[in-house]
Amino acid sequence: MELLQIFIIVAAAQAAAVVFRRLRQPVVVGEILVGILLGPSLINFVTPSSVLRVLGELGVIMLMFMVGLETPLPSIRKVGKSASLVAAGGVILPFVFGWLAVRLLGHSSLESLFVGTALVATSVGVTARVLAELGVVKRDFARIILGAAVIDDILGLLVLAVITGVAKGGFSVSHLAWVLLSIVAFFVLVLAGLPPLVRKIKPAMQQRSPSTLFLVSMVLVLGLAVLASYIELAAIVGAFLAGMVLADETHDLDLVRQVEVLGSFLTPFFFVGVGVAVELSALSNLNSFLVLLLVLAIAIFSKLIGCAAAALASGESLSDAYIIGVGMIPRGEVGIIVASIALASHAISTSIYGIVVLMSVVTTVVTPPILSVLIKRQRQVKAG
Amino acid sequence: MELLQIFIIVAAAQAAAVVFRRLRQPVVVGEILVGILLGPSLINFVTPSSVLRVLGELGVIMLMFMVGLETPLPSIRKVGKSASLVAAGGVILPFVFGWLAVRLLGHSSLESLFVGTALVATSVGVTARVLAELGVVKRDFARIILGAAVIDDILGLLVLAVITGVAKGGFSVSHLAWVLLSIVAFFVLVLAGLPPLVRKIKPAMQQRSPSTLFLVSMVLVLGLAVLASYIELAAIVGAFLAGMVLADETHDLDLVRQVEVLGSFLTPFFFVGVGVAVELSALSNLNSFLVLLLVLAIAIFSKLIGCAAAALASGESLSDAYIIGVGMIPRGEVGIIVASIALASHAISTSIYGIVVLMSVVTTVVTPPILSVLIKRQRQVKAG
Repeated sequence: MELLQIFIIVAAAQAAAVVFRRLRQPVVVGEILVGILLGPSLINFVTPSSVLRVLGELGVIMLMFMVGLETPLPSIRKVGKSASLVAAGGVILPFVFGWLAVRLLGHSSLESLFVGTALVATSVGVTARVLAELGVVKRDFARIILGAAVIDDILGLLVLAVITGVAKGGFSVSHLAWVLLSIVAFFVLVLAGLPPLVRKIKPAMQQRSPSTLFLVSMVLVLGLAVLASYIELAAIVGAFLAGMVLADETHDLDLVRQVEVLGSFLTPFFFVGVGVAVELSALSNLNSFLVLLLVLAIAIFSKLIGCAAAALASGESLSDAYIIGVGMIPRGEVGIIVASIALASHAISTSIYGIVVLMSVVTTVVTPPILSVLIKRQRQVKAG
Repeated sequence: MELLQIFIIVAAAQAAAVVFRRLRQPVVVGEILVGILLGPSLINFVTPSSVLRVLGELGVIMLMFMVGLETPLPSIRKVGKSASLVAAGGVILPFVFGWLAVRLLGHSSLESLFVGTALVATSVGVTARVLAELGVVKRDFARIILGAAVIDDILGLLVLAVITGVAKGGFSVSHLAWVLLSIVAFFVLVLAGLPPLVRKIKPAMQQRSPSTLFLVSMVLVLGLAVLASYIELAAIVGAFLAGMVLADETHDLDLVRQVEVLGSFLTPFFFVGVGVAVELSALSNLNSFLVLLLVLAIAIFSKLIGCAAAALASGESLSDAYIIGVGMIPRGEVGIIVASIALASHAISTSIYGIVVLMSVVTTVVTPPILSVLIKRQRQVKAG
């Protein structure tokens, strides 16, 4: 990718931001539309490339780090019960319905299991962006969504471990135990090991220039993102946790502003990249189109109903439950990762792969406008 | 390139920064050494890739933009005569001596002309970084270097236009006129067209969030960088001019700080990339090694003497003249671009290409420590 394409992406994303702010629509929708417009489906000026992928990865990592910086650990612990229930609801319903539907359509047992697993995923990046745009990151429903997304990622990883075990010719207890152990080790390291370290080096950093804390934070957030993706959790989970640890140990407004600056430059690349990934060619015939519609309906409603019902059951209000349910809908890159693993082990056909990728993108694209309307309406009701 | 490599680059660059600050050495040297260490010559963990190239390009663009923001146009106009003389001195001597030496070694006339042209280039990125690290960007010698580097880039482009014309089988007046015209058009656009536009949209931007000015500036700097590289000027010349225009029209401390944050993350990728580009394999035999030593000596001393003598002639002090001469030595990516053009048109052998690339990298690597010592010594003499 050349400098010219980067310039066009930045300029188009900024133009879209101006228009969408004036229309009172989420800016992130404008960025995704810019991606669809510039991407292979329409103008074909920008194609998926390693440069766009890395810039986007860095962008969504900075976004989740920033949201983590606004979310100290105790605030998540407070909503822990609700978040766990919401995560469980958002795993069980999508898995069961996704698996059943694809099985009933006559696909293989393994293929159906993988589609179910892809539907379990939650990619909370786009939701976090809408929450940040509307300034509601610190509300309880936001924290339930964020906490549930982390737990959901862990549960999804365990489901994936079981299913890939099955795909590789038999489920192995030792593999599942290994995945569990690495997750536990990761969380112990982050939540127990890191805070004392941060406390220890904090005074030394504050004595230096204001950029020292920022740059050390960059090392921390990239390190945890890499570590999380190595044990096959999403990189954004690592970035979010890095933010949470720093939010606990240092309340540093300068740092938040610096991360915001870096994020404001890098984050649009992620959402433009989501748009660029839209490949309409997967819908080569009517049959795949109908399968997509079905999978999409199941993806949206199973997550919405599973999470909203769980939120209601744990005592949240109906309007909060709706917001939580919608906030958990996007599958984003996490769904695509599951589909890629399945494709690489020849467990699914390229046609089902294309459908899962489209489902992941579409659930990400449709969420921001709905979420934005729900949050604004709740605000009006409270004000009125 | 994967997230892991980006993490390692960021972490290693930060570690090097801590060590080099403690040793009172320029941090940029540490970053280049990190690149040599991680690159193909030693560990081979990071290889030149499109991702590293783009991150580095963005980094050096942000660096030159930041330096431009500290350099309002009148400050360059004030030193205009000295800068022009220094640029001329830094073009004539390196070209004549580079061409003569390679010709006397028995290489073809065309090959010698291209080596002379590559020696004309100045890549002021590393010098600007040292000036910024030492906080002397606003000193007269710094502004002479920056102004001379811009003029040098224009002169170098004209020389290149003539030589490539010769290489393509005959020098064409129309091609040269076309290059001249595009340069003039570019400067008229930037220096006459842009300031009124910036003045016009400034009030609208200041009413909005503080990030609006930052993001609009990003569009401006990337746009001018792309435009400059399209007419084959260096992208960093465009970035520097964008900064100068904004420095004239808005003195906005917030903007400077925001660009610094983005730069502090991105700029190390450029200098690590300089280190990664060091390919010791070009020195396959004793003969190429001796040719490299000769070309290197000519590259360093012709630029140093040409620029320092011109600075002296235009009335600068001896210590300023030394600093100016050393500051103009690095050839960086500009020298490599000339060599690549020559290689693509089969005008030079791969062995001479390798030598010019190494010359470009080595002149960039050796400059920071010498420049740093000269500036610090001058400071002590004035204080003592």
